[in-house]
Amino acid sequence: MERVNIAEKFARFSEQWQPKIVAELNGQEIKLVKVQGTFPWHHHDDVEEMFLVWRGRFRVEFRDRIIIELGPGELVVVPRGVEHCTAADEEAEAIVLEPAGVRNTGNVIDEKFTAPIGVRI
Amino acid sequence: MERVNIAEKFARFSEQWQPKIVAELNGQEIKLVKVQGTFPWHHHDDVEEMFLVWRGRFRVEFRDRIIIELGPGELVVVPRGVEHCTAADEEAEAIVLEPAGVRNTGNVIDEKFTAPIGVRI
Repeated sequence: MERVNIAEKFARFSEQWQPKIVAELNGQEIKLVKVQGTFPWHHHDDVEEMFLVWRGRFRVEFRDRIIIELGPGELVVVPRGVEHCTAADEEAEAIVLEPAGVRNTGNVIDEKFTAPIGVRI
Repeated sequence: MERVNIAEKFARFSEQWQPKIVAELNGQEIKLVKVQGTFPWHHHDDVEEMFLVWRGRFRVEFRDRIIIELGPGELVVVPRGVEHCTAADEEAEAIVLEPAGVRNTGNVIDEKFTAPIGVRI
């Protein structure tokens, strides 16, 4: 049994849009990610994804101009198969929950944003 | 898509040891629970359980006197089948992640502590 301190884990890295696994259970992963700017539009087949903001302001945009704005302690679940785009004007930190092995850009391969899978911190 | 504000959800209830579901994804539930005192020893067959402290101090005790003390922003994953006991000297608030439909007292039925399953807030 390991105690995981989220702030301490966030302090260990600085790169943005590169999720780091900090816990795993029941086939799911808890990942930390730092974000700034706008991520590519994408969806995840058969996978739901939760974003819980830890620091800063973060938004999840959907088609039809629906935007969910999140601050610290706020979360949203993105339904499976639904196209979305995440963005933050200033750097924000989020906790991501999703099944193990999910590609961050979903159905898209993006030279800049597609991150390695399975990176732990 | 619904934005969930964790502080606002915690403010909606006062009872202790009665988990409330605030989000569901991929067969898992995110639950909020207020705790104070000591919970019965129990285990969960085939289920891993995560506790992430939101407010206060909370501990997860295991046999052989192993105690994981958690403060805000700290989490632990309890392995499947491992007997554990949760406790807090003063009221604490925690976020619980586990598969849908798990009984809070696991293999034990306790008149005082076994809570209804599937309660949303």
